[in-house]
Amino acid sequence: MRDADEFSITRAVIERFADTPDPRLKQLVTSLVTHLHAFVREVEPSFAEWRAGIEFLTRTGQICDAHRQEFILLSDTLGVSMLVDAINHRMPEGTTETTVLGPFYVEAAPEHPNGADIAGGLAGEPLLVTGTVAGADGAPLPGAVVDVWHADDDGHYDVQQLEALGGLAGRARFRADAAGRFHFWSINPKHYPIPADGPVGEMLAATNRHPNRPAHVHFMIAAPGHETLVTHVFAQDSPYLDSDAVFGVKTSLIAPFADAPAGTAPDGRRMETPYRHLDYRFGLKAAAPRA
Amino acid sequence: MRDADEFSITRAVIERFADTPDPRLKQLVTSLVTHLHAFVREVEPSFAEWRAGIEFLTRTGQICDAHRQEFILLSDTLGVSMLVDAINHRMPEGTTETTVLGPFYVEAAPEHPNGADIAGGLAGEPLLVTGTVAGADGAPLPGAVVDVWHADDDGHYDVQQLEALGGLAGRARFRADAAGRFHFWSINPKHYPIPADGPVGEMLAATNRHPNRPAHVHFMIAAPGHETLVTHVFAQDSPYLDSDAVFGVKTSLIAPFADAPAGTAPDGRRMETPYRHLDYRFGLKAAAPRA
Repeated sequence: MRDADEFSITRAVIERFADTPDPRLKQLVTSLVTHLHAFVREVEPSFAEWRAGIEFLTRTGQICDAHRQEFILLSDTLGVSMLVDAINHRMPEGTTETTVLGPFYVEAAPEHPNGADIAGGLAGEPLLVTGTVAGADGAPLPGAVVDVWHADDDGHYDVQQLEALGGLAGRARFRADAAGRFHFWSINPKHYPIPADGPVGEMLAATNRHPNRPAHVHFMIAAPGHETLVTHVFAQDSPYLDSDAVFGVKTSLIAPFADAPAGTAPDGRRMETPYRHLDYRFGLKAAAPRA
Repeated sequence: MRDADEFSITRAVIERFADTPDPRLKQLVTSLVTHLHAFVREVEPSFAEWRAGIEFLTRTGQICDAHRQEFILLSDTLGVSMLVDAINHRMPEGTTETTVLGPFYVEAAPEHPNGADIAGGLAGEPLLVTGTVAGADGAPLPGAVVDVWHADDDGHYDVQQLEALGGLAGRARFRADAAGRFHFWSINPKHYPIPADGPVGEMLAATNRHPNRPAHVHFMIAAPGHETLVTHVFAQDSPYLDSDAVFGVKTSLIAPFADAPAGTAPDGRRMETPYRHLDYRFGLKAAAPRA
């Protein structure tokens, strides 16, 4: 293992991992070293470029805190998150396509009854969301747990402005009723830039990429016997549908956030102003049988 | 750019970088995305594995501080640093081979006169280092600036124990004399583990790799008209010469740290105890002519 040169070092490093007890970990590190070295061999970085890479990764780690995950953002903007998502969700007919979790998911969102208004302190046009949760065969899934979260009219999430809001907003958990239906009120989210004041923002600026995501509502839907669905629904009239900064848009996930006039809304609420209405049907994939 | 799937997403991401103004940056990101996606496609990480990777990188960034660079350590232990080094130092006959800078280099080391004892508060067997700095043609390089740094008898660097030592030790800058010679006294460094209490240590433990480096002294040598040489000289009698945790050992860099009896040392110092003596000849590569 002495005298590793630019040609033999990859083999030398892989051999050093030969005694890894866990076969999956051994496969992961072997493949990582192979591809990482192939990248280095292809681009032949200067010492200064290598150092810039080290510093970029260091700053990416250091800007992370309880409410910011810059490595997820990096994974998202390099298309890695959507690739991992695609590999893990080869979905059958009748199921909803998946997309990235994103960095703004909060595990313990408050549960609300159907029909609740979760806008909290967020300003914006009212939005009614109605949905159905079903299996791939179309049978409704009563009791399905539906987590939702979305940005405000200005493109920010609650967790980016907790002090101003005094708590979570535009975020809640619902349960589907006996017909697999759920509904809630909030405000119409806008397209927004991902946080661009850190290393990922530098990368986007240096490569002439815009940081924007088209308007969407996030959904995470869990039901017994089914794989948990993580997806967004995108607003049909939003800009950036064709250039989402994190590559998350799928045609099947684009839906009208339709203009509705003032009057009695489908759930009986009396609206003094026009509002938007999104209705979407979610199909969950059956969980693989236990081995 | 909608509907990127596990096969088309790599092309979609690369196309997004199409407007990168700097052609070298464009080459770097294009190659990075290609190889990173190839890695993901090969190992098909689960969501939990992807998340573990995100968290590993985050912790690696967060443990870095003014005296600790865990991403360099990660680069070192994955053989990336030595690969970058090899690519950047295709050395001609008559020059010294290079090796990794490592994480313990300090830019502003204090300059000392030849013959100084730089052991500071470090305990250990005395070591005399004598060296010659020459060009590839053998002509001495008077005035060459020689930075040296090394671990102590216990395997720690000064920067890892600054409070206990009260300052830098086992670290200094010298200038070669008219014959290209320099010499100094210090203590004989020992083999040592790289810092193993962070994410890199976890990786080594999980893969049954030891964290040790064979005993060595670091040298960085600069002379006008020549490429700055960054290298180590390894002690011939050290353990781990065949399994350096960072893949830095080259046969040409192994030299005797020879036992010498008490008495008058080659520089005239009267030694009451036995000591070690390392003598090494450094050959610097001429700098490329400016374009």
